[in-house]
Amino acid sequence: MSVAPEMQKVFQYIDDHREEYIELLKKFSAQPSVSAQNWGMREMAELIKDSLRKMGVPAELVETHGVPGNPIVYGELNYGKKYTATAYNHYDVQPPEPLEQWKTPPFEPTIVGDRIYGRGTSDNKGSMLSRHCAVDAYLKVYGKLPINMKFMVEGEEEIGSPSLEGFIKDNSEKVKTDCFMWEGGTRTVNGPVHVSFGVKGVTSFELRCYGANTDLHSANASIVPSPAWRLVQALATMKNDRDEITIDGYYDTIVPPSEEDMEFLKTLPFDEEATKKRLGIPAFINNLTGVELQKKNLFLPTLNIQGIQSGYTGKGGKTVLPSYAFCKMDTRTVMGQRPDKVMKQIREHLDRRGYSDIEIIPGSNTLPFRGSPDNPLFKAVVKNIPDIYSQPAAVFPSTPGSTGVGFMYELTGIPAVCFGVMNEESNAHAPNENIFLDDYICGIKLTAAVIHDLGELG
Amino acid sequence: MSVAPEMQKVFQYIDDHREEYIELLKKFSAQPSVSAQNWGMREMAELIKDSLRKMGVPAELVETHGVPGNPIVYGELNYGKKYTATAYNHYDVQPPEPLEQWKTPPFEPTIVGDRIYGRGTSDNKGSMLSRHCAVDAYLKVYGKLPINMKFMVEGEEEIGSPSLEGFIKDNSEKVKTDCFMWEGGTRTVNGPVHVSFGVKGVTSFELRCYGANTDLHSANASIVPSPAWRLVQALATMKNDRDEITIDGYYDTIVPPSEEDMEFLKTLPFDEEATKKRLGIPAFINNLTGVELQKKNLFLPTLNIQGIQSGYTGKGGKTVLPSYAFCKMDTRTVMGQRPDKVMKQIREHLDRRGYSDIEIIPGSNTLPFRGSPDNPLFKAVVKNIPDIYSQPAAVFPSTPGSTGVGFMYELTGIPAVCFGVMNEESNAHAPNENIFLDDYICGIKLTAAVIHDLGELG
Repeated sequence: MSVAPEMQKVFQYIDDHREEYIELLKKFSAQPSVSAQNWGMREMAELIKDSLRKMGVPAELVETHGVPGNPIVYGELNYGKKYTATAYNHYDVQPPEPLEQWKTPPFEPTIVGDRIYGRGTSDNKGSMLSRHCAVDAYLKVYGKLPINMKFMVEGEEEIGSPSLEGFIKDNSEKVKTDCFMWEGGTRTVNGPVHVSFGVKGVTSFELRCYGANTDLHSANASIVPSPAWRLVQALATMKNDRDEITIDGYYDTIVPPSEEDMEFLKTLPFDEEATKKRLGIPAFINNLTGVELQKKNLFLPTLNIQGIQSGYTGKGGKTVLPSYAFCKMDTRTVMGQRPDKVMKQIREHLDRRGYSDIEIIPGSNTLPFRGSPDNPLFKAVVKNIPDIYSQPAAVFPSTPGSTGVGFMYELTGIPAVCFGVMNEESNAHAPNENIFLDDYICGIKLTAAVIHDLGELG
Repeated sequence: MSVAPEMQKVFQYIDDHREEYIELLKKFSAQPSVSAQNWGMREMAELIKDSLRKMGVPAELVETHGVPGNPIVYGELNYGKKYTATAYNHYDVQPPEPLEQWKTPPFEPTIVGDRIYGRGTSDNKGSMLSRHCAVDAYLKVYGKLPINMKFMVEGEEEIGSPSLEGFIKDNSEKVKTDCFMWEGGTRTVNGPVHVSFGVKGVTSFELRCYGANTDLHSANASIVPSPAWRLVQALATMKNDRDEITIDGYYDTIVPPSEEDMEFLKTLPFDEEATKKRLGIPAFINNLTGVELQKKNLFLPTLNIQGIQSGYTGKGGKTVLPSYAFCKMDTRTVMGQRPDKVMKQIREHLDRRGYSDIEIIPGSNTLPFRGSPDNPLFKAVVKNIPDIYSQPAAVFPSTPGSTGVGFMYELTGIPAVCFGVMNEESNAHAPNENIFLDDYICGIKLTAAVIHDLGELG
């Protein structure tokens, strides 16, 4: 259970070229590629294509047909009948706003102490380059990889991957693989690297409730129906004060964790006291702790109020009876739940209780996914982490959050393992995004060692 | 049951001086007197004092000691041991904003068709002048009134009458009276004049609920408490879906309507179908109609959500777990309920259900009041309306709304009767405030006839 001896040369190469790989991360992070603002997308794709080619990977841009239809960078190293891994990444980043909260300019990557700051460093140009540079180092040392590798870098992940389904349908040969190396892992600062082989899905929607055709003086509240109260009362039928979702049948189809999944929960790096202190809360929901807390966190769905609004919410008071109320919600789903089924359950639940007038506006979806700890890629990642990071991995059979991995599994049936170079202070999607330089270098080494071990599968 | 024959001369005088009285209303309405903006207050008070004096009423400004401490215009016609009525009014008006929605300038009173438009015409310079001009006409015709009259015009009604309590304490002799002629009546357009001898009170407050010390990614919703859900669930314990307030003991102390009160409900001018159509609602609460609808409207408390807000309420969605939720509320109270008691009931109700963490921020209060139909002033008003308006009065034993009359009753123990010159399209507190000129003239006649009849009491 340690790094293969053949990796010493590769690790040495990586250490010797540390500055070169950091420069490459700087170069990539300096190129804006904000999909939501259609800013620098093709330039970024070209940069990656050229970089892969320079490393010896035949790469091309594959045009897509969604909106906006940013190209996907695709590359492949094919050595015949061998295990194939695909590095899935994305080259688009979140908008840098609010600009005034950045301590260094978002697109001028800056090293401060042991971290590099800049938009995209963590999500996910750092993780992407950890795959690419690992291949580069391996090729430089051994001339070829022990497995087939594919590279897929999309440009629309931050806006919901609208072109991904079309790409997969049109390029079934390119998509074919044994497993995806997925982004989305993280690390506890000064603690273990997180590896996961599952995610929750998320289904977003909005409830809307209407009363009179205009706001009225609140003297009318005796006789004119209140949409604010009606929404509150409808919501109260959907979850009880023990945080149990009371939508009819909501838990009926969910796949419970296996015994093996539950075993992993015992070793998760989660400092309950520190977390409560940091968040300023006296207790977690239902005073849960330990394995029960993590079981709820990873294996039970949520029903979250993102926001709710009705009527007058300014300074002081206003004696008004509101004419409209809405509630933006998301539900984090687990294996066995599907967005269409969930939306149908909510509609029927409300109808059955006489709330047919409450409109449900569907929003975006991602799907839940749960893989297996027997997955060779997962095993290789977990095996190599202790030597490289000087401490064992924290294994998450699922994560409380959601990524596109469930959607990919839905479309291809191919599992994924999530690991990367970011950490819990990386500020992904926020100002002052950053990663530790050492985590970046370790990520390159980890990927290289994983590639090597997967070669043993023949 | 008709206007006394002695009134013919007075009515003739009023008709002959119609233009003069309308000019006076124009003059008063042209003088801005916005208490919230401290705009023109003393100028307005002086104008009223001078006008009363010109009419033959000894009047003065009584300084007050609240904040802002606008003077109260006080006048008195004392003929010895007789029935005394006090015309209570206010000279301040609501701010004219939003200015762009006015079709004529708010402080340039303008006659369009049979109405006069301008800020204050309805609330309540028209009603105030209907009292003053009635006295003027009566004095011009008969030289003296058959009763004692007092005149009290405050300048802070629109900002909650902060100086009124002090004034009453410091001026017990001036305040002493048999009954207040209160503002606040209205009229159904082309329909009956409304007269009321009761009002609901209103107690405003805000509920605040806190979660983590910052908004979090909604992936945390499995284990970190949600203040939005907590507030929703707390609210759901306070009212059920049949609009019954379920706060412990909330209905226990309320004074039910008398049989006489209930009789009045049968004659109220309320076109249910037209109202539903106008508001765009399929039914009133609980499908109520007729007397049951009016009973709830006038004699049961409300618990209204003025506004509720938590988390993200902008465009689209945002996967956020909010850290804070609040709800602005008002409860319209009825006889037997008191603001302090009501606030205590809500606090105890929440505490008993484990919601001690939910903060209650108290707001403003007015008190409920219910008088008696045996009140001589009330009887005189109702008696004289049919001849003057060509249709009988609509009698409201209580109103769904709230005014300062309950507070005055609390402080003095003196009842009030509410009638005035505005109508249901008067846009009080809104742009294009207006009254019908004929309603103004009829209001002057009605007050004069009432003064005459009260004189019969000796």
